[in-house]
Amino acid sequence: MTDVHPEGGFSTARVETLGDGIFAIVMTLLVLQLRIPAGTLARDFPHELRQLWPQLGAYVVSFVVLGIYWVAHHNQFAFIKAVDRVLLWINILFYLVVALVPFSASVAGGYHEQPLASAVYGGNLIAVGLVLLLHWRYATSKPALSEPVDPRLRREIDRHILMAPALYVAAIALGFVSTWISLAIYAFVPVLYIVPNRVDRTLDEMKAGLR
Amino acid sequence: MTDVHPEGGFSTARVETLGDGIFAIVMTLLVLQLRIPAGTLARDFPHELRQLWPQLGAYVVSFVVLGIYWVAHHNQFAFIKAVDRVLLWINILFYLVVALVPFSASVAGGYHEQPLASAVYGGNLIAVGLVLLLHWRYATSKPALSEPVDPRLRREIDRHILMAPALYVAAIALGFVSTWISLAIYAFVPVLYIVPNRVDRTLDEMKAGLR
Amino acid sequence: MTDVHPEGGFSTARVETLGDGIFAIVMTLLVLQLRIPAGTLARDFPHELRQLWPQLGAYVVSFVVLGIYWVAHHNQFAFIKAVDRVLLWINILFYLVVALVPFSASVAGGYHEQPLASAVYGGNLIAVGLVLLLHWRYATSKPALSEPVDPRLRREIDRHILMAPALYVAAIALGFVSTWISLAIYAFVPVLYIVPNRVDRTLDEMKAGLR
Amino acid sequence: MTDVHPEGGFSTARVETLGDGIFAIVMTLLVLQLRIPAGTLARDFPHELRQLWPQLGAYVVSFVVLGIYWVAHHNQFAFIKAVDRVLLWINILFYLVVALVPFSASVAGGYHEQPLASAVYGGNLIAVGLVLLLHWRYATSKPALSEPVDPRLRREIDRHILMAPALYVAAIALGFVSTWISLAIYAFVPVLYIVPNRVDRTLDEMKAGLR
Repeated sequence: MTDVHPEGGFSTARVETLGDGIFAIVMTLLVLQLRIPAGTLARDFPHELRQLWPQLGAYVVSFVVLGIYWVAHHNQFAFIKAVDRVLLWINILFYLVVALVPFSASVAGGYHEQPLASAVYGGNLIAVGLVLLLHWRYATSKPALSEPVDPRLRREIDRHILMAPALYVAAIALGFVSTWISLAIYAFVPVLYIVPNRVDRTLDEMKAGLR
Repeated sequence: MTDVHPEGGFSTARVETLGDGIFAIVMTLLVLQLRIPAGTLARDFPHELRQLWPQLGAYVVSFVVLGIYWVAHHNQFAFIKAVDRVLLWINILFYLVVALVPFSASVAGGYHEQPLASAVYGGNLIAVGLVLLLHWRYATSKPALSEPVDPRLRREIDRHILMAPALYVAAIALGFVSTWISLAIYAFVPVLYIVPNRVDRTLDEMKAGLR
Repeated sequence: MTDVHPEGGFSTARVETLGDGIFAIVMTLLVLQLRIPAGTLARDFPHELRQLWPQLGAYVVSFVVLGIYWVAHHNQFAFIKAVDRVLLWINILFYLVVALVPFSASVAGGYHEQPLASAVYGGNLIAVGLVLLLHWRYATSKPALSEPVDPRLRREIDRHILMAPALYVAAIALGFVSTWISLAIYAFVPVLYIVPNRVDRTLDEMKAGLR
Repeated sequence: MTDVHPEGGFSTARVETLGDGIFAIVMTLLVLQLRIPAGTLARDFPHELRQLWPQLGAYVVSFVVLGIYWVAHHNQFAFIKAVDRVLLWINILFYLVVALVPFSASVAGGYHEQPLASAVYGGNLIAVGLVLLLHWRYATSKPALSEPVDPRLRREIDRHILMAPALYVAAIALGFVSTWISLAIYAFVPVLYIVPNRVDRTLDEMKAGLR
């Protein structure tokens, strides 16, 4: 792995470091949507504070979703040994859609009764998921860039990444029926990624099979 | 320590790096609560500036409290040698409650005469303390994750971490009598953690005993 | 490479690390220009959201431009082996103009029909490009600071860096004819830097010639 | 150098890393004071843009001053080999006053015709300088924490650090005569630190004497 332009590559460490910075800032900027309007009188403060529940929900869900994508992105780098020009730009595109989350989360928190707000939030998260899938498929399709990955594992990781965007499509569509269903899906999806999953089981089986 | 997903772990360095970024940003975002309202006329500027004393107090106390938790979190990693899935998510939960501090501090600074604002701030800091305790107890309960810790030391660290949340419970309760008592407690708690304490003495004794 | 003042130098790693932090934050702060005005009623939300297209465009273009300059700056450090006082301050000047981009991008997004806004944005990006050129020329003119660079390559990199500022001058001038031409140029310039270019071909030829 | 609490120390690398993050964020947040008021009409935009000159001045001067203090702080760590509890908290205090600069700079930019605003800005920078001096004096007074420093060099560094606070006291005082004098001093002080200075000459002489 090299950091040197003359050899046409860019170090994986550098790309991950930029990502660590961006994830840390994006996760922290989420809090800016939580604010009592300037000039709120003392006697209106309890009311304004209660009004912030949807924003707090959007904060918690988005923080956890970003945590999941931060972990997933780093896990992919366990297989990636070099970054070419295309992969570099896929990474920057990934950071570009990740950095939009504080905006889409503030829309989702601020206008949670509107299907359109749910669509903005879901659309942003779908973009994050699809770019992560592109990142995975591109990197593992080039032997020069990644360690060989067992085809079964590769397919399962594909499906694991796609699960969230598929559910977010459902969340957006059902949002036009009831935004509460939509919000329930947004709250529920992260749980699927935090508990042990099929990819972990396959990895365990592969390790057991090796013994 | 490995960063590699196939082995089901995540490097301690990575988790600490994300934390360094988050703490640096959270501490710096605290300053955003200090602002002269847009459109303040020159002649009203001295008045508006004086109005910022409570916010400046909230800034200083919160900055120091975050400094304490940053140090404490790193100190725990002196004993931690690996991060499993549960510990990873305890860390992300820790960062989630830490990243709320700029919000709760701005509430405490902006509405310092309201017991409810004191409760929001205290509640946030209690959550930070309890998640840190959970982090410590979980990590040190698994031999695969941490160096063995002397039981007496472990208990003293438990108590040391719990001291702040206990005092914050008192601050919230007494805030309903007088918010000034509450503010005094918030200002006083960090002092207890900056001066040398019982945990340090135990560590010194243990080192002396080893000789 | 040394970090030690007594020897009058400053490590390249340190300077790059500050830059990584600054780029990550600047790229992330771009999102703050995307906001629904506080107090927008639910029924006006779709309208206000549609109003954000110019800001979203400014976000995407600026994010990609910053990505390009982040890559270019690091690529220069592939040749740089030490940082003297002058080069240190050229770097800080580079970060100073880079950190202005969230402001100039918000002006370009918010007032995209005004030639003056286009000039502010273009002027900022010209400054970034020219300071990067200064960085490259100064570093490679001092044998103590950089690896020797083939004169042909050096000239091509000069020209490659200057291409963007030249096009931005055109964008500013044509903005007084039509801001749409100006915006098209801003959207188009990054493409020139993402696709493989003459500098890459020269590097490939040089490597081929070496074999 | 150790990161381990049981030995009562904290790594210098860790403290510097937090500082790199804080400086990068503080320098970048300075840009938030540059903003066209929300709701400015297109025809008022040129006027509002021109109004931002003082803020742009405060941005540039503050960015450079922070660059100087970032360099100075790292240069001190060239001599520091360990961080004890007191030095750790001096560092956190240093970051606390550094992180206030975006506030005091926005005050100085927004109310540049008011001596009080100049005093807030100058007072903040005096605090930064004095805490840096405390950092230097404390660290170099403990043989366990730092390399031995030549007494003549130590005194010159003392004086070099004190120069800025002394000039800022003058800036505050003269601000009550004319804020223009005050602003000229703020613009001028950084120059003294960017050009080669007496400390550099002493270091050169010491190195020459060694040969």
